[in-house]
Formats: sequence, C-alpha cells, structure tokens
Amino acid sequence: MPYLRICICPIMIHVSISVEQAEFLPACSSRNFLICVPSTHAAAVVRDLAMSTNKGGGGGKKEVKKETKLGMAYKKDDNFGEWYSEVVVNSEMIEYYDISGCYILRPWAMEIWELLKEFFDAEIKKLKLKPYYFPLFVTENVLQKEKDHIEGFAPEVAWVTKSGKSDLEAPIAIRPTSETVMYPYFSKWIRSHRDLPLKCNQWCNVVRWEFSNPTPFIRSREFLWQEGHTVFATKEEADEEVLQILELYRRIYEEFLAVPVSKGRKSEMEKFAGGLYTTSVEAFIPNTGRGIQGATSHCLGQNFAKMFDITFENEKGERSMVWQNSWAYTTRSIGVMVMTHGDDKGLVLPPKVAPIQVIVIPVPFKDADTTGIKGACESAVYTLNQAGIRADLDARENYSPGWKYSQWEMKGVPLRIEIGPKDLANKQVRIVRRDNGTKVDIPSTDLVEQVRVLLDGFQANLLETAKAKRDACIVIISTWDEFIAALNDKKLILAPWCDEEEVEKDVKARTKGELGAAKTLCTPFDQPDLPSGTVCFASGKPAQKWSFWGRSY
Amino acid sequence: MPYLRICICPIMIHVSISVEQAEFLPACSSRNFLICVPSTHAAAVVRDLAMSTNKGGGGGKKEVKKETKLGMAYKKDDNFGEWYSEVVVNSEMIEYYDISGCYILRPWAMEIWELLKEFFDAEIKKLKLKPYYFPLFVTENVLQKEKDHIEGFAPEVAWVTKSGKSDLEAPIAIRPTSETVMYPYFSKWIRSHRDLPLKCNQWCNVVRWEFSNPTPFIRSREFLWQEGHTVFATKEEADEEVLQILELYRRIYEEFLAVPVSKGRKSEMEKFAGGLYTTSVEAFIPNTGRGIQGATSHCLGQNFAKMFDITFENEKGERSMVWQNSWAYTTRSIGVMVMTHGDDKGLVLPPKVAPIQVIVIPVPFKDADTTGIKGACESAVYTLNQAGIRADLDARENYSPGWKYSQWEMKGVPLRIEIGPKDLANKQVRIVRRDNGTKVDIPSTDLVEQVRVLLDGFQANLLETAKAKRDACIVIISTWDEFIAALNDKKLILAPWCDEEEVEKDVKARTKGELGAAKTLCTPFDQPDLPSGTVCFASGKPAQKWSFWGRSY
Repeated sequence: MPYLRICICPIMIHVSISVEQAEFLPACSSRNFLICVPSTHAAAVVRDLAMSTNKGGGGGKKEVKKETKLGMAYKKDDNFGEWYSEVVVNSEMIEYYDISGCYILRPWAMEIWELLKEFFDAEIKKLKLKPYYFPLFVTENVLQKEKDHIEGFAPEVAWVTKSGKSDLEAPIAIRPTSETVMYPYFSKWIRSHRDLPLKCNQWCNVVRWEFSNPTPFIRSREFLWQEGHTVFATKEEADEEVLQILELYRRIYEEFLAVPVSKGRKSEMEKFAGGLYTTSVEAFIPNTGRGIQGATSHCLGQNFAKMFDITFENEKGERSMVWQNSWAYTTRSIGVMVMTHGDDKGLVLPPKVAPIQVIVIPVPFKDADTTGIKGACESAVYTLNQAGIRADLDARENYSPGWKYSQWEMKGVPLRIEIGPKDLANKQVRIVRRDNGTKVDIPSTDLVEQVRVLLDGFQANLLETAKAKRDACIVIISTWDEFIAALNDKKLILAPWCDEEEVEKDVKARTKGELGAAKTLCTPFDQPDLPSGTVCFASGKPAQKWSFWGRSY
Repeated sequence: MPYLRICICPIMIHVSISVEQAEFLPACSSRNFLICVPSTHAAAVVRDLAMSTNKGGGGGKKEVKKETKLGMAYKKDDNFGEWYSEVVVNSEMIEYYDISGCYILRPWAMEIWELLKEFFDAEIKKLKLKPYYFPLFVTENVLQKEKDHIEGFAPEVAWVTKSGKSDLEAPIAIRPTSETVMYPYFSKWIRSHRDLPLKCNQWCNVVRWEFSNPTPFIRSREFLWQEGHTVFATKEEADEEVLQILELYRRIYEEFLAVPVSKGRKSEMEKFAGGLYTTSVEAFIPNTGRGIQGATSHCLGQNFAKMFDITFENEKGERSMVWQNSWAYTTRSIGVMVMTHGDDKGLVLPPKVAPIQVIVIPVPFKDADTTGIKGACESAVYTLNQAGIRADLDARENYSPGWKYSQWEMKGVPLRIEIGPKDLANKQVRIVRRDNGTKVDIPSTDLVEQVRVLLDGFQANLLETAKAKRDACIVIISTWDEFIAALNDKKLILAPWCDEEEVEKDVKARTKGELGAAKTLCTPFDQPDLPSGTVCFASGKPAQKWSFWGRSY
C-alpha cells in the first residue's frame, strides 16, 4: 500500500512514504524515505509527492528508470526558491535542523569548505597571517565600545544569560564578529612600531540571530567563516592589504567556485558598521535578479583604534594611532556557487572544489564479463587517484547504472566514466560531462591526460557560461524610468550616481515593496567613462561615479 | 622614575611598569609592559615585581643581561600552579581573557593545534571518517532525551535566552558535546544496513560552564576539539574502532607531544554519561601528583540508539538497533604537554609539534663581519627550510643575542643555532639544545643531517625522560594504609580492586579534602599478574583487576 505520513512541527514538515513507493519519488534516495521540507514549501511538496506516488502506483522497473531521470521536483527557472532548497538537501550538502536558521553541513558541503580553506589559508600564511583563536563570548561592556559597530549588530546578538539553573551575573554575548573580542588585547600587545604589523586570522563560527528569511548557506543564524584582523603603522599598508585580500576573495569565487564577481567599494550606507571603507566582491543571481555580497575586505581606519586605545611608539619615539583592517568570507560562498551553476538535474560542481571529480560506474550488461568490467573500473580509479585526481568508484550492486547516473548528477560530479562490455573490449572508457552532457570515448591509455583536459575545460566553461549569463543581465541606465524598468526586469543595474547618502536612502524608500528595496551593490573598480555633464539617475545632480544597483540577498 | 601601576578588576590584576624598568622584570618582553596575572597570584607577582624593580634601579647593561637569564618568576618545583600560569602566558601561548575561564589561544598554541590536527585528520580520513558541521545550538527538548547523559552535563550547560532585546520563545542550549545534536539526524539518515557504518567527525568549539578552578588549556569554559561519532551494525565493529581511535590518541600524546600515557578503561563511575564503556589515555603530572585524562574513546552501546530510535533493516530484512561510538581530544592536550616538559626557563617543545624547530641567532661581536654572519644565518635558515625543517631567523637589531636566547628558551624552541665570527671563519655553526643545554659545533656542510639527528634525539629524549619521571611515581600498593601514604606522597597508585561502584564511592568519600578526593584513573590494558587470593585494597573483597588510582585534574 502506498502511503504518505505527514508530521507537522512548527519548523519542519516530515513526510514519510512507504518503502515500496520510495523509488517513484522525485529525488528520493534509499537513505531518504523520510524527507524534511521547510513549512513554506509544504503544499507544493505534498502535491508532488502525491502525484509521484499515484503515478508510480502500478509501475514496474521500466517506469522507475524513467522517473529517476527526473531527479528534482522543482525547476530552477520556474520556482527558484524551492529549487534551491531541494538541491542543497537532495545533493546531501545540507540537512534542515530543528532550530530555524541553523543547518547541518554534511560532507558534500564540508569537503568543499575544506578545499577552499586549504587554498585560502596557505595564501594568507604567505602574507604572514598567524592563526589565533579568540573566545566565542564577549561581555556587554566591551561589545558596546564602538557605537556605530554595535548599532549595526545589536539586534542580531544572541545572549547567554544562564548556566545550568543559575542566572549569570551579567548577560554574555555570542560573537557576531570579533572586532570587540580582539581589540582590547591588540591594545595590550602593541606598544612599539616593532610590534607592527600584527596579523591575526581565525577560522570559527559566528552567530547572528536574524529573523528575515533564513536560507541554507546564504542567510543562517550560525555560520562558519575566517576572519582576518590586521594592524598597521600606516594607512598605505592597510590600503594595500585590503586589495591583496580582495584579490584572494576574487580568486576563491572565480578560480575555484567559477562564479564571476565584481570588485568594488561599498557606499557609505552599506559599509561595515564602524569601519572607514568596505570593499567587496559582488556576485549576481540572474534567476532572482539579486546581487549577493560574496566577501568583504574592510579598512577600519582608526575608529576602533581610538575606541580601544591601540597606539604605538613610532621610530621617533612619538605615540601614534594604528590603522586596522578586517576581512572575512563565509560558508555563504558555497550557496552562491550552488545558485550559479545548479540546473534541473541538481548540483553542478566546479572541478576545483568537487569532493569527487570523476565518478566511475560499471555498466555490466547481461552475460557480460562482470569481473573484467569491475577490474577496469577499479584500475581507472586507481590510475586517476595516483595522478592526484579525486576519483571514486560506485560499485553498489543494489542500484542500476541509470539510478547511479541520476544520483551523481544530482550531486554535481563533473565527470562520469562508464565502463561496459564494449568499452572493455575496445580498451576505452566513456566519459560524460555533467555541465553539457557531451559524451566522449577515450582510450584507457590516455585516461589521465584526457581527464585533465576535460576537467580544465569544465572549470573554464562554467565560469564563462556564468559570466555570459551575468553580463547579459547588466543594463546601463541613465534615468529613473529606465532604472525602474530594469529593476522590474531583474537586471543588474549600472547607473551614474551623485554618491550622496540621502539619495541612496531616497531610492530605497521609493523602491520599497514585497521584493525588498533596491540599493547600491558596489561601485566597481572597473569604471566606464563618465562624460562630464552626466547626471545622477536618481537626483539629477552631477554624477560622481558608476555604481551597481539592484535588490540583494 | 621606576614605577608600578596596578589596576584591579574582578578577574585580573593589570600591572603596568615604566618603560625604563621593563628589562629588569622577570620574563618581561618589550611587548609586555602591561602584564596580566590571575588575582590569586597577585601578591606574589607584585612582590617579585617590586623586588626586580628595586634591584634594577641603578643597573646598567651588564645587569640586564644577567636578569634576562632568569626568565621566569616562579620555579616549577616550588610553586607549580603559578609556574604554569606564567609559562603559558610568557611563552605567548595564552592570553587571559576578561571572561573567567575563557582564554585567547595565540599563534604559539594554535600552530601546535594545527600540527596535531593535520596528523589526526589525515589518519581518521584513512578510516573513512567524513567531515560534518552540526549547529552550536540544541533545544532543551532534544538535549534532555538521554537521561544519564543530560544529568552528567546539565549543571554546565550555557543557555541562550535572548536575541537583541527580545526573549527567545524557549531557551536554547550551547552544545557541551554533540550526541544529542547529531543523533536525531542519524535516526533519519540510517534506514538500511547499506547506510552503515556512518562515520562523522567535526572540529569545533564546545562550552561547559564549569565553576571549579579554570586553568588555561586544562579546564576552560570554551575549548576546541574534534568529536567523532560513528554508527555500526555490530558491537564487534564498534569495539574495534574504539581501540583504533585510542591508539591514535596514544600516538598524539607519545609520538607528537612526547607525553607518556596509559591506555585503559574507565570505571563505571567515571565513564561517559549515557555510554556503555569508556576507554582513555591517561597522563600523570608528577609535580602535583595528579592524573589527567588525555582523551577518551567511548563505546555508547545502544543506549542512545534506543533514545533516538536509530535502527536499520539488516540483510535479512529485520529491524536492528545500531551500535555507536563517540570520541574526542581537545586543546587540553597542549596543557598536558606544557606541564610535562616545561622547566624553570619556560616551555620545552617536542620538535614534532614545535612551530619553530630551530631558531637561528646571529652573534655579531664588535668589529666582526656582520654582513657575513647575517648571510650565513640566512643561508642556514634557507637550507633547513628547504629540507622541510621549521627554522626561523631572529635578526632583530634592538635585542642582544643573550636576550634572544632567553626569549626562545622561554618559548621552548628545541634547537638554537648561534653563528658568530669564529663560526663564520670555521664554516661551522653552534647548536644548543633546549632540553639539556648541551652545545655542539657542526660543520655547515652537515647542517641538515645533524639537525635531523638532533631533533630526533630531542623528541626521543623528551619522551624517555618524561616516562622515567612518570614511572618513578608509580607505586604498587595492596593495603589502605599504603594507599593513603602513596596518595599523600603524590604517587600514581596501582592497586588491586574489587571493581565495585560502591567501593569507589566510599574511597572518594574517605579521601575527600582540600586537594580533592582520590578516584580511579583507569584500569590499564597492560595488567600485571593478579595472583588468586589478592584482595581489594579498599574493601578486602577479592580483587578483580589492577587499577590506577589518584587525584586528578
């Protein structure tokens, strides 16, 4: 008997389906008879589940195979939000947790995070950054020392007020970021110009108890990040490092995640609370027409130095105030990658961050030399691993090759190698690309070389395709009407702007609505010509610069 | 004018001294004019500071040199507690934080943590452990599901009750450990025998809001650890893994930290709350006569599986309950190493975990070929680095060689290379060992080879010395009187025991006192003969086993 059992709790709806029917479900693996969906998606999921169950009711093997090709219940272009939730869960990156806004990061996400960390940590160690670990907790007193800073974070701070059954003497905050945790000690450690520069980095969790729209990776109440905090004797050194780090962030997005980003500077309204200026790499999600901040590198100037009394004796024996930076990128980066490359079959992973770059699947037809095929598969995996390529074998006997194809497509593995009787006879393997589905037969002797070429091409193709899609969304406008039209059209708007805070506030107010207001995303470093006489699209005053505008995550 | 300025806050006493007097302070570096000491040590520190300041009042260069050789204000054998606090702070591993029980881990500690992590993470990945990240938070409801477990942790749980200015609907706990965070999801993910084994590991912070005696590394309210959580179909697999992991923990202590440990099993009283049995590696601190749990590998049996409904369909189609393990080691391991090897000059680091294994110091006498000496130093560092040895150059010009010797001794760097005019002329370097102070002149051509030999010898010597000291503390007893005598004598007591919980409770009650009660440390796997007729030292009943007893951290 097919059945659906639905349990509803305040946060999640648990849907159990009968074992017999499991295979008929879109995107349902044997591990996942019980699936969780956000309450907001419940109606749609239940509808789809019911449909699938009915459809599969009298089905046999043949229909199962067809169904598994579907993979996903939602299409990226039809219902982006549901598609995203589905892809992060079904690819086994994310499991929803029973506290809203918190998510479990599963190996398929964590292995990507580790690969990014490996790159970034080695790069910052070349820049002489040192590893630190500062406490999770900060006292109210210290947290509130920099007024603008705490104003920016106060509404999102989680407070510990009890231990065991006792009340604490005073509430203690969980770090939303660590400026106020660290800087009292910077003040203590820095006495002379010889103590500079001071360069700290830590990999840790932070907590921001936001109430708006939690989304896996993109907006969560706890997330993982690195935070760099550096102290210099001069503004020039600080300025230089801001851009060095920003370039590393660009490389994370473009070289590793294959996500095109714009480097630029944030407006006064959008800069880091308490800082001097903020630079960022900004990505764009064409499906929703929203910009998304990829990572930020802030020059804090001397504001915090003043509040926390961080001074040093310079070479002439005079007291000077230090210059500071802070910069961070987070697990959000993984979400931006999923949104950018994923398709209706699931995730698409850039080879550089794919935990498995090549999945090898034996295709043993009836009466074929099963042992020979398995041996060839094992040998292919071994050869690729020896060459430093992350390859794995899917030798499970309780799944058909077709089912495995779907599952690894769902998980976004860049290349699939199929080895069947014909391949064995011809001493070749068939390679199928996840991004465009093209198939090619390769002599086994050329395996490593050809796989390398394909992986490189795959990586480059992902970035190019994403860049073309992003660029196609960029619209240069010059009037308010054009601005509104482009905004409604989900474009990434490049507009001449007078650079006045009041005008940005005004644009926000005038575009307020269900989808959220428009704001500046950044002023890109790469500026088009600004002929004299160009006026601001919003105020009519003389334009100072071109800035990206739009809605954002 | 020499002066001391003392500011007292509830947690710390800040002592500022004048710049002119800084050099006369024991263990005072130029970065550290303002030093923090725990309130409990205040009187002694102030006394010493005052003495040093008076002594140095009219001093010149010569006396400065003498003073810096002192390095530490406390001696390990005279006042172990103060010595320990001083060594972790002055070596720049730890900075005291303004929340009691929380500490800042500085690079000199974090780099050791990273080296340990590199080893351990690679080893568990060979065992097919996968990286996960589960949330920091857990609901009250879930936390309380396993009764024994929560009883063990409840008094130490920190609760978040507010975000911003709003009260949360229900308090949320910060993980003291993640069994209850993870296992509801294990229940969901595991359906069939094909989903087993499930092997999760995460590197993260945990919080246990303890009120007894916070001590850097050893007992802190937040600490870093890895926690492995694994699920098997059979008890045999679980039992096997418990010991595989325990062996990795032994290697961390003995091969890396050069700390001798005993592998064994915990008594029923001392096992993990809610688990089936606990194994551990136990170290011993001769100076305090206290045992210290180094790391634990627990078999949880089926207790949690029952509470969280973690079952699977076995090959015969029957529902079975899983078997689980959990295991962890923490930043405490660094503290055990400091306590074991440190001496009156400061830290002593085993080469395998020393962030710098060799410090190279130019010794330019008057009229010497300074450029030549500096070049030889740079070349030595380059040659060693190329050979994979962590060497660094201390070329600071504002410190004398003698001052540098003291500082790097304080930081525990295993080998010091000195290059002066004579060495330059003879194409040799002088190498000084941190552990025993022996000096040897080595031809520059043999540098890498000889340094390797010395580092290996250093590592082996540290373990041997520590083992000899530990072994000298082991006393085999057979009666209550012998037990009490050995306990008062700070020994590590090996005693025949009836293995009854009531008897351990009774021993605890009878030895209660200022220094804490005695308890079992572990029953070592390596058991001496137990002749029939041997009786329990405490109850007089037939003895079942030899167990280690003593006071512990």
